[in-house]
Amino acid sequence: VPAGVVNLVDKLARFSDLWSPRVVAEVNDDQLKLVKIAGEFVWHAHEHADEAFLVLAGSMRIEFRDGVSHLSEGDLCVVPKGTEHRPCADRVCHVLLIEPRGVVNTGDAGSERRAANDVWI
Amino acid sequence: VPAGVVNLVDKLARFSDLWSPRVVAEVNDDQLKLVKIAGEFVWHAHEHADEAFLVLAGSMRIEFRDGVSHLSEGDLCVVPKGTEHRPCADRVCHVLLIEPRGVVNTGDAGSERRAANDVWI
Repeated sequence: VPAGVVNLVDKLARFSDLWSPRVVAEVNDDQLKLVKIAGEFVWHAHEHADEAFLVLAGSMRIEFRDGVSHLSEGDLCVVPKGTEHRPCADRVCHVLLIEPRGVVNTGDAGSERRAANDVWI
Repeated sequence: VPAGVVNLVDKLARFSDLWSPRVVAEVNDDQLKLVKIAGEFVWHAHEHADEAFLVLAGSMRIEFRDGVSHLSEGDLCVVPKGTEHRPCADRVCHVLLIEPRGVVNTGDAGSERRAANDVWI
């Protein structure tokens, strides 16, 4: 079989650290990553990359300079390239990210919150 | 707010025809599409496009020339570009597809099963 099957819930059970995306698949130039978030992240933008957030469990918000988007389970939001944003969650939230290979979590923001990139699980 | 929120369940409730993907978002060069499938599709390949299947509800299988991948809710499978495959489902299954803009559902297979491309919902 040329294509394996990945179960997202199984993969999520294999890590618990926050703000540290794990790659589960690549599709063309995009990677699919799982991440667990809680609290407030840093303001940042990805100059050349759109970034999709699909909430798998819990709820979160994406703050923008001109407003906020609230996401619950099953909600999808695409942050356009170059757009300053800050992901936040009151409680642990499980998210599927879709963004190009090579995108770091903190974008243009130098920060101790920067996670290792391209970590597969 | 620069980025709207799309609920996948709400979008799925808005159509019932089978094998007819609806675009819900674009992320870089890829589109995210919802599709409902049941029965057996046609054998086909997408010469230049990987295609990801994420099962949102139900179960399905992807037949390959050398085997079969079984997917249930929360399962993800990426069909590599150029790989012959045939999606099938015993009962109606709801799927999120990730594939580049411009990909038609029947790939290289001429077929009356070809759906309109780039239909947004």
